[in-house]
Amino acid sequence: MSADRIRISYTVEGGQDRDVRVPSGVSLFDAASWNGVAIDSTCGGHGTCRKCKVRVTGGQVPVSRLDPRAFGPEELAAGWRLACRAAATGDVQVTVPPLVTRPKAATVGVGRQVILRPAVQKRCVRLPEPTLADQRTDLERLRAALDDLDPAVDLHALRSLPRALRAGDFEVTAVVVDDVLVDVEPGDTTGRVFGIAFDLGTTTVVATLLDLTTATPAAVGSMLNPQQPLGGDVITRISATMLDTGALDRLTAHARTALDGLAHEVCAQAEVAPTDVYEIALAGNATMTALALGIDPEPLGVAPFVMSTRSFPGLRADDLGVRVHPAARAYVFPALGAYVGGDIVAGALASGMDRDKRVRLFVDVGTNCEIVLSDGERVLATAAPAGPAFEGAQIRCGMRAAPGAIEGVKISDDDVALQVIGDVAPIGLCGSGLVDAVAALLQVGLLDASGRLLTPEAAAEVRPGLAGRLHSVGEERVFALAQNVYLSQRDVRELQFAKAAIATGWRLLAAELGLDPGDVQQVLLAGSFGSYLSPTAAVRIGLVPGVPAVRIVSAGNVAGEGAKMALLSVRERAAAQALLEEVRYVELSDRPDFNDRFIDQLAFPAR
Amino acid sequence: MSADRIRISYTVEGGQDRDVRVPSGVSLFDAASWNGVAIDSTCGGHGTCRKCKVRVTGGQVPVSRLDPRAFGPEELAAGWRLACRAAATGDVQVTVPPLVTRPKAATVGVGRQVILRPAVQKRCVRLPEPTLADQRTDLERLRAALDDLDPAVDLHALRSLPRALRAGDFEVTAVVVDDVLVDVEPGDTTGRVFGIAFDLGTTTVVATLLDLTTATPAAVGSMLNPQQPLGGDVITRISATMLDTGALDRLTAHARTALDGLAHEVCAQAEVAPTDVYEIALAGNATMTALALGIDPEPLGVAPFVMSTRSFPGLRADDLGVRVHPAARAYVFPALGAYVGGDIVAGALASGMDRDKRVRLFVDVGTNCEIVLSDGERVLATAAPAGPAFEGAQIRCGMRAAPGAIEGVKISDDDVALQVIGDVAPIGLCGSGLVDAVAALLQVGLLDASGRLLTPEAAAEVRPGLAGRLHSVGEERVFALAQNVYLSQRDVRELQFAKAAIATGWRLLAAELGLDPGDVQQVLLAGSFGSYLSPTAAVRIGLVPGVPAVRIVSAGNVAGEGAKMALLSVRERAAAQALLEEVRYVELSDRPDFNDRFIDQLAFPAR
Repeated sequence: MSADRIRISYTVEGGQDRDVRVPSGVSLFDAASWNGVAIDSTCGGHGTCRKCKVRVTGGQVPVSRLDPRAFGPEELAAGWRLACRAAATGDVQVTVPPLVTRPKAATVGVGRQVILRPAVQKRCVRLPEPTLADQRTDLERLRAALDDLDPAVDLHALRSLPRALRAGDFEVTAVVVDDVLVDVEPGDTTGRVFGIAFDLGTTTVVATLLDLTTATPAAVGSMLNPQQPLGGDVITRISATMLDTGALDRLTAHARTALDGLAHEVCAQAEVAPTDVYEIALAGNATMTALALGIDPEPLGVAPFVMSTRSFPGLRADDLGVRVHPAARAYVFPALGAYVGGDIVAGALASGMDRDKRVRLFVDVGTNCEIVLSDGERVLATAAPAGPAFEGAQIRCGMRAAPGAIEGVKISDDDVALQVIGDVAPIGLCGSGLVDAVAALLQVGLLDASGRLLTPEAAAEVRPGLAGRLHSVGEERVFALAQNVYLSQRDVRELQFAKAAIATGWRLLAAELGLDPGDVQQVLLAGSFGSYLSPTAAVRIGLVPGVPAVRIVSAGNVAGEGAKMALLSVRERAAAQALLEEVRYVELSDRPDFNDRFIDQLAFPAR
Repeated sequence: MSADRIRISYTVEGGQDRDVRVPSGVSLFDAASWNGVAIDSTCGGHGTCRKCKVRVTGGQVPVSRLDPRAFGPEELAAGWRLACRAAATGDVQVTVPPLVTRPKAATVGVGRQVILRPAVQKRCVRLPEPTLADQRTDLERLRAALDDLDPAVDLHALRSLPRALRAGDFEVTAVVVDDVLVDVEPGDTTGRVFGIAFDLGTTTVVATLLDLTTATPAAVGSMLNPQQPLGGDVITRISATMLDTGALDRLTAHARTALDGLAHEVCAQAEVAPTDVYEIALAGNATMTALALGIDPEPLGVAPFVMSTRSFPGLRADDLGVRVHPAARAYVFPALGAYVGGDIVAGALASGMDRDKRVRLFVDVGTNCEIVLSDGERVLATAAPAGPAFEGAQIRCGMRAAPGAIEGVKISDDDVALQVIGDVAPIGLCGSGLVDAVAALLQVGLLDASGRLLTPEAAAEVRPGLAGRLHSVGEERVFALAQNVYLSQRDVRELQFAKAAIATGWRLLAAELGLDPGDVQQVLLAGSFGSYLSPTAAVRIGLVPGVPAVRIVSAGNVAGEGAKMALLSVRERAAAQALLEEVRYVELSDRPDFNDRFIDQLAFPAR
């Protein structure tokens, strides 16, 4: 990759100079914005505002078609160029004038600064009225005014065009999404541009209505995925489609109902007309995405785990059942593999996995655990089948993270302190509580590295103040956390399996990159479960590498953040697409060394 | 244009040699097929059959990407190339081997030979089954097998893909229309490929189901346009949309119902599954096209007569309400002007108006009369408002061409011979009968060149055997054709106005090209009315230039023929699109000399 890279040296007047290395062919504007060098622009790099004037003082950048409109011959000879149209193909030095206007930007994802440049563009134009001497068609007239844009035309826009022109006295606003004219509205409607970012989770669906003129969220809504009755996880839903020919249609209908319902809910919350929403973005795992689009997921569920496609270009919102603007477009995050889906690509984007020079590990903990590891140059991804332990399933007193769930456990010499969701008595143990309890028992020595709970006799010696909590339920040894809530020996075994799958995954990726676990400089815990997990506990049980807790970051709902970024910036969307090439997917299921490593990882780290 | 042309000399082994001049950059295959030189091919020039082998014996043609797959290094050095991939940019000599397979072709339109090369392509491919070592997506797998095609993918095809692959044991047929993959079908379905050509007339709608594997019509159906109750002609239908906000939706619904109804009728006739119809083509005037697509036609109806657009790329059959294959595409003929619509572009294509070196005049006679004139190099088009006389409207005994209508009139010294539609007594006079009657009366001298019927006294002197038929109805002089069917003085005036409008139109075009009416070498009478018109009568009243009757050709339903050609050949479709550039539209309504010329043309040619 580095062979095709060139160096750009920015001399920023009134700011900090910067040397950057970027792929050859990138515009001076994009290279600057990727690297935090601010160049004036109000159009976001579309070649229309002509504000991104820079001077090339060393190296060659050819004069673009638009440059002569912005500069005189002397200026062109002196190296002045519009940065957004200036593609650097060799090393160059560039002087950047001080900012006059500041590009709108938003902080999204894990501290990612996104410069507002949505795929949705509105342009208000005033057209000359037709005469017998100028019988150009309405569309030709509009196209001439759109200047640099040469969009394809949606039939909806064609239907709106004649009436909008005449209702607006030939002042109209053209709505272009990507490279398609989707509507023409009478008058100036440039103040109303919205998009909806969807995080379509197996469990939860979240929608964020974004004002694309300001990059601010206008409303957020969420609901449980109504597909749940047909299966709690991805595999059971795929199985449902294999057992019942009608199930795919029902699952698709459920997904569409959820997305459409949330779209209308967030619009109502913010008092925004659904027809002002011109684009939606969706991040979901490969199965959720296939089901929402009505694509048979069966090949995802059986070896060799094949997707129908990685990318979904050219979709409309109504292909996903979302009835906002009638010609609204849909951006659906592409997937790396059957079990490293669009949600992870979105998460990797929001976490800047492709942008950071540090060795970083991204782990989305769940029934299917997705792992991304980057050494700053190369990025690998894989999926580890962790099983349902983190969801609280197959755990004796397990439950979802709902009121009454123990989500945190601290164990001292003679006492147990519990953190319970809601102001209620504990009734069960959720995933983060399970990890916490196991970590704490390891720490106090009531659980050994092999995962065995001590006998009451042995415990009485080690921790006399706690030994009374060790007893048996049926044949099984348990540790009592509260009245009727306990951790069983089998629960520990379940967690060991889950932990081993995940640790085997990131250890294999590290080995592929020639890294030691100790080389990892940052761990990002993603997903709704990852956000609640105690970093100390995660390290204690060996779920993540043994780095200091401050270097373990709860990244939050990065899939949803990635979806927002895709709406806010075509540049970020291109970066997501580029991840498909940059990230190498490693299939674990055919690795001959997987089982050996897995068995090694069943044990917990020694004290 | 000739500046960019190059010369290709074809030496045809076992055939006739040919020198042709074509635009630079055209492939040797296309240049040959345009000029009647047959080069072997079974794929129609798509680069897949590798049969179109030719040898370049003089001049330079670079080696294409596909050539090394078809030829060894010595053959390449000897000048062997695949003709369909060989773009000639300078004068070349080419040797063409004898034909092994003959390309399928059909004669369509006015003697046009169309080589079968539909936009719809089916490719049956067998794909390697996925393994853990080859986890390419279904789509990547299919794309690799499609070789030269790199289609966009319709969501419908994506939905079919996983199941089709597995149902067909990885042998599937890909259906590509233009550059879009619209479906993937299990097994080999290449034998079933259909399209429907629509002629959407103001009065009549005709559908032809075409077998695109053989270029043969499988069924034809027609019906009256159900929009009729909302207005008999274009202007009254446009007015309806201006007076009533619901009228556009109703007119659109009527058009869609007609198209969809006919589609299902022709499929049922031929026992073809509607889902085997992958493309439709539609030719209609600008108003009919706008109404069918749900586009407000109002600007077409009022000065300055502006269309919403000339072309309609990227449409689907269901945008026109036609429910055949769910992802079927629609090709809609582009329009030259508000009153020279897609029907005329289709007609000009079917008549080869852009291909013939002769001076040719194309006249589609109707309420709105479209006129195209070519001098073999330049092509001009205009529209003349002829009024409803030809439809039998505003004619005392006028009627449509239906049973009982007098459609032909011959007048001898003392008798009148009538040709009546159906085996019934005459009850009225249709357009062709009107023209015949007036021409015959001019011929026998009972009507003078100014359009005045002789007085009974004067008639008794000139044609004593006919004078008895001249009498008065009310204040008005009439000529009796049959019992209760007569031609009135006002009827003659109506025809004079219509004839003057048309004759002014083609005379103005001739003047623009520096031609005399006598220079016209062929007259094509198009449209359902034109086909019934007597050439002699048309010349006699001055409706067309005074050329010998044998040079006046009834071209038939050329709009429908053009629509068939568009389905059969992407090359012809490109030619139709090129007509938009090649044909200059002349607006008559702002010509300062129109009125003077119109008044000149009111008189009939002298005997």
